[in-house]
Amino acid sequence: MALVKRSSAAAAVTSGPIDDIFAALAQRPDVVSFAVGAPDPALLSTELVSSLSLDAIRKYGSTVLQYGMTQGFAPLLDEARNLLRNRHIRCSLDSMHISTGGSGALHNVCSALLDPHDVVLVETPTYGPAVKEFGSHGATVVGVPSDDFGIVPEALEEALARYDVAFVYVLPTFQNPTGRTMPTERREQIAEIVVRRGTSIVEDDVYSDLRYRGVSPPALCSFAPDNTIYITSLSKTLAPAIRVGITVMPPDLLHSVLALKQGIDMQTSTYCQAIAAEFLGSAAGAAHLAHVIDAYSAKLDTLVDAVERHFPQGFRWLEPEGGMFLWVEGPRGFDADALLGTALREGVAFLPGSVFYADGDADHRNTMRLSFANVPRADIDRGIAVLAALCEDTA
Amino acid sequence: MALVKRSSAAAAVTSGPIDDIFAALAQRPDVVSFAVGAPDPALLSTELVSSLSLDAIRKYGSTVLQYGMTQGFAPLLDEARNLLRNRHIRCSLDSMHISTGGSGALHNVCSALLDPHDVVLVETPTYGPAVKEFGSHGATVVGVPSDDFGIVPEALEEALARYDVAFVYVLPTFQNPTGRTMPTERREQIAEIVVRRGTSIVEDDVYSDLRYRGVSPPALCSFAPDNTIYITSLSKTLAPAIRVGITVMPPDLLHSVLALKQGIDMQTSTYCQAIAAEFLGSAAGAAHLAHVIDAYSAKLDTLVDAVERHFPQGFRWLEPEGGMFLWVEGPRGFDADALLGTALREGVAFLPGSVFYADGDADHRNTMRLSFANVPRADIDRGIAVLAALCEDTA
Repeated sequence: MALVKRSSAAAAVTSGPIDDIFAALAQRPDVVSFAVGAPDPALLSTELVSSLSLDAIRKYGSTVLQYGMTQGFAPLLDEARNLLRNRHIRCSLDSMHISTGGSGALHNVCSALLDPHDVVLVETPTYGPAVKEFGSHGATVVGVPSDDFGIVPEALEEALARYDVAFVYVLPTFQNPTGRTMPTERREQIAEIVVRRGTSIVEDDVYSDLRYRGVSPPALCSFAPDNTIYITSLSKTLAPAIRVGITVMPPDLLHSVLALKQGIDMQTSTYCQAIAAEFLGSAAGAAHLAHVIDAYSAKLDTLVDAVERHFPQGFRWLEPEGGMFLWVEGPRGFDADALLGTALREGVAFLPGSVFYADGDADHRNTMRLSFANVPRADIDRGIAVLAALCEDTA
Repeated sequence: MALVKRSSAAAAVTSGPIDDIFAALAQRPDVVSFAVGAPDPALLSTELVSSLSLDAIRKYGSTVLQYGMTQGFAPLLDEARNLLRNRHIRCSLDSMHISTGGSGALHNVCSALLDPHDVVLVETPTYGPAVKEFGSHGATVVGVPSDDFGIVPEALEEALARYDVAFVYVLPTFQNPTGRTMPTERREQIAEIVVRRGTSIVEDDVYSDLRYRGVSPPALCSFAPDNTIYITSLSKTLAPAIRVGITVMPPDLLHSVLALKQGIDMQTSTYCQAIAAEFLGSAAGAAHLAHVIDAYSAKLDTLVDAVERHFPQGFRWLEPEGGMFLWVEGPRGFDADALLGTALREGVAFLPGSVFYADGDADHRNTMRLSFANVPRADIDRGIAVLAALCEDTA
């Protein structure tokens, strides 16, 4: 069967450098890894999930084990509406669905919107797995110049004039990989453009609950509700393995998405949805989130402090107000891709920023993404000291 | 945004008559419904799932809440191998993955294999949602004449000679909708054909653990391991809402499938996978399965008895040895599609057999699928008496 024809989707998707890094890391538990964008295992509360599981079963009985509506479990849809209201998103039930994590949401949406050769506009840099997903649908991904506040309005106008665009994909809050957040004014500008041009925008917002200081701008969706497909998930606050995402979109698009989701996975686990509903609706859930925020906030402080003390001149970084990532830019000529092998040998891992550029442009090899969520706080300073010394040697 | 262009996948998938029936049923809890192919809620054990959940958390700790391998949770892959061995499937770890239910498995496989205009061969009748899924990938679905033992070998030869086929899709054991099982000899014949012709076959096998009498033939996969993609799930034995499927395929195809699954849903819930591993590996799980088999077996007996006593002459049915379905064929001229509205008014529901034919051929309007799993045993005789009387009036 080695000669079986693969689909064009399969041909478009291959494992990339990130996979190789993770494969290498799996062999090296001693490495201080700023590469992994996963939650701190110490903040994944088995006690909380045990008690939420039992609460869900007690409250809803065997309903949590049975087939349910493809759209989602009603009590979770209700709780999700409250969550969204806090982000200034007012939505009706006929515009929401529960997906199998944030990636499930993006896949559902891509399935409903993308055909081969469609164009998707993305920020530069942007979330790599999303680019891969767009590619699996045969889409052409075009990076739009972006600054410290996200996609640049003038550049977006230009790209929209040049291409017939299926949608624009953005991560406005604590972006993966840069940690940057689009301020309210920029959101208004972007929203005005997409509304005026009748374009759709996909807002991927899975980090906004992890805010350690400052005030959250309203979701981009709130400025262009009829043009925005909004995606969030509980992977970063409750647990990735619960695989629950929440998505808002115009009702007529939702109709298509749900028809496709029936074939994609029928529905998201009702059991996991019920656990998620209990999480969102309980004081224990709120207390857990507060604890997670405190812990990550302390790690971010430690990381910023370490970077300030150890990194050589010529390096700059964006200090985020939340999320899981610190983005470091070295001087021109600094080559993070080339540094990675040495760093791994010296016991430190990070992701080269170049993997987050859709065009694979060699211009971005001076950038690095440092994830701090998954690193034990006690290891942060030591890891950064080693990495900074290597940067000094090679920059 | 009402004018946003949809993908060809979205255009191909619309809600069908089954959706309408379920929408009607949702309003009528008084109806005795032989329409719903879901497990008996009384056999979805909240006690078992509570204890499996706590066991999983105790055993694996926060690992069950964290991101994990896209391929699946290692302890579940191990347990799955034992399950498969009982079905005469010997497989190595590099040929398996855990999917988000059986539908998730089928979607992953279709994503890796299907392009628009590819041809998929199916049995007649066949599982409707699978046809819908193939259609969403743009495939042309061709029904191959089948008898009480499944797809007819000569007809398969003819179809393979006529079409360039992406794969053949079969449900050899307790087929949905007919309940029929392909005997060992037929499996050998079908396997010989696909091997000789270098064709792939997708074996959808989600009911084989629900055997109430007789002996299981080996999985079709065991006769053509290099040509078969084998799909099973725990939805019918543990719980649909756990959304755990198990899939076996040649390793090089698995490589493509996993690359795509990263974008489809990243991974199946580790928590649900750990619960599934505990189910498969525990005495409590085995005891639960035995209990489920006893209860469904009694329901099937009650149903067959009722059908024999009430149905008028000219109707025939296949008595299955397991699964959830009884397939009834009326005399020529009997119109199950036309009967459905009256039946619903009289308080009985079923699925017209015509919805299970890929070609929508009007020749099959004399068939009905009766699901017995979800109907309280005490209601079966009464429901069949009403339905049989209506059949007598209209046949």
